[in-house]
Amino acid sequence: MTKAIIDDVANLAGVSIKTVSRVMNKEPNVRATTREKVLKAADELNYKPNQSARGLAGNKTYLIALLYDNPGPSYMANIQTGILETCEAQGYGMVLKPVTCEGEVPLLEQVLDFMAHSRVDGLILTPPVCDDVIFKSLLTEKNIPYVSVAPPDRGDKLAVLIDDRRAAAEMTDHLIDLGHKKIAFIKGDPAHGAGKLRYNGFVDAMKKSNLPIESDLIEEGMFTFDSGIRAAENYLNLDPMPTAIFSANDEMASGVMQKLSEKGYHIPKDISVVGFDDTPISRQIWPPMTTVHQPVRSMGRLACEILLHAVNNREGERTLEIPFNMEFRKSSGTLPA
Amino acid sequence: MTKAIIDDVANLAGVSIKTVSRVMNKEPNVRATTREKVLKAADELNYKPNQSARGLAGNKTYLIALLYDNPGPSYMANIQTGILETCEAQGYGMVLKPVTCEGEVPLLEQVLDFMAHSRVDGLILTPPVCDDVIFKSLLTEKNIPYVSVAPPDRGDKLAVLIDDRRAAAEMTDHLIDLGHKKIAFIKGDPAHGAGKLRYNGFVDAMKKSNLPIESDLIEEGMFTFDSGIRAAENYLNLDPMPTAIFSANDEMASGVMQKLSEKGYHIPKDISVVGFDDTPISRQIWPPMTTVHQPVRSMGRLACEILLHAVNNREGERTLEIPFNMEFRKSSGTLPA
Repeated sequence: MTKAIIDDVANLAGVSIKTVSRVMNKEPNVRATTREKVLKAADELNYKPNQSARGLAGNKTYLIALLYDNPGPSYMANIQTGILETCEAQGYGMVLKPVTCEGEVPLLEQVLDFMAHSRVDGLILTPPVCDDVIFKSLLTEKNIPYVSVAPPDRGDKLAVLIDDRRAAAEMTDHLIDLGHKKIAFIKGDPAHGAGKLRYNGFVDAMKKSNLPIESDLIEEGMFTFDSGIRAAENYLNLDPMPTAIFSANDEMASGVMQKLSEKGYHIPKDISVVGFDDTPISRQIWPPMTTVHQPVRSMGRLACEILLHAVNNREGERTLEIPFNMEFRKSSGTLPA
Repeated sequence: MTKAIIDDVANLAGVSIKTVSRVMNKEPNVRATTREKVLKAADELNYKPNQSARGLAGNKTYLIALLYDNPGPSYMANIQTGILETCEAQGYGMVLKPVTCEGEVPLLEQVLDFMAHSRVDGLILTPPVCDDVIFKSLLTEKNIPYVSVAPPDRGDKLAVLIDDRRAAAEMTDHLIDLGHKKIAFIKGDPAHGAGKLRYNGFVDAMKKSNLPIESDLIEEGMFTFDSGIRAAENYLNLDPMPTAIFSANDEMASGVMQKLSEKGYHIPKDISVVGFDDTPISRQIWPPMTTVHQPVRSMGRLACEILLHAVNNREGERTLEIPFNMEFRKSSGTLPA
């Protein structure tokens, strides 16, 4: 069977090609009876508008792009899976666009160059791309629709986030409840707003319990495994050492755990270590790590949903806050005797 | 400045739109002088053919699709990074297409349905998608260009692979050199051809050294962390236990290491554990794991290169074998006294 083309649908429905295109692109100004005739004909012929043709006709490409700068592999896998769930349900394709936030070429230029080749209907920005306020205001100026995943504040028209600050405070409370007072904190990459929010949550909880923030217990990390290793080396040189270490993500926490294990420390008997994100490594090391579950897959799915809704309806401001979960595992325990 | 469109280029060059389209799509049958005029005009106007238009004009979309079924996150991140290196260099976009090899809908149907919406110029197949011989022959029949990454044999027109069998034999030799004789092997998902090749390599090396393949030391894994845990539980019930465990991938090996650590075994003092792939977890657990480095990123980059070459030149049979590396770390040691 030859594949039906738009002419076939127009012929069968007795309307112009332009009208078929309008119906397929869900444009207004088509009478309900005409719309029905066209849809019936399209259905009968099993007609599927091809994407390139759809792109030209309705000024849409039915493609969206995911913008990212060096995320962890499991974050990337989860956010993609979530976005694709929405894309597949709505007949969209997702194109990947790696960018460099710290490079010489401004973000907007990288994106415009990309969009000149791959036209897309909208952008999904992940951290730290969505931390660039200037970039986002330029996108708005150029009328390029975007949604931010885990932005540093609530200033975006479209955003999906968790309450990083409250989650970090709850994790700190967990350590305090276990009797810890000398609690260390490893900050994340300063380019990521979420890292700052997590640090603020830690400070909130320490202050609430009248515990001091000791400057030599606060390490500047980069969200990487190696920066966790380095932080642990610094803690190992302290006397007394902290009794608990809260790392702003799991990747750094696993570096801490490796270094402590190498030096013969038992977790959590000698020292507690907790993370943030619930990436696979947190479950796969020994002992399994206490952490905050960030529902990245759902965040991707919902971010794509509100983006496509805004694209298709040319409207909408929406910030979705998704609940997080505490995952209490074996890397946190009571204060050593 | 308004963006130049194809009409502007045609006007400036004094040729028809059709001719500009032919030049832009690198079609033959354009005189050299005409081609030069068009390229000069396009350059002067900073004209960039938009993708949808390119798609219709030259029957190309400048998109390729990556087909995958539930890979590990780091494999996914690496293969994507490699593919995108080639895509960015050649002005292509990559669309992701998750498929289900074991589902009710045949692979071809899943792909045709996808291609009806997102037209792409070619497909990159990763394991276990590239293990489906029927699917691949149907793609060939339908003239859909594809390249296989790590296929189970050398039957594809376009493929990129490592010598899994030889790598596994070398890893087994490493354990034998350390004095091990009672060596266990955890197989991978039987749907992945590479898993079989790795097992065959293990058998090659054991036979070469006149060591027995003991059936209770061979476990059927699924390439997952949990299947590694289960295999370890079975080994823990044996008396005597194996002195070394070779797992067909790192994910299962990390499950083995977690279970052994939980039960108080010291690696490698009490028992050696080695993996395959060199995923991040192999470096991030304690002790760091001896494994085979599979250059997934290069494999993605090269797979995309030979695919695009074949697409653009309508020719070419090519199988690239990429070298692997042994990564000797701390999880393998001499036979316990």
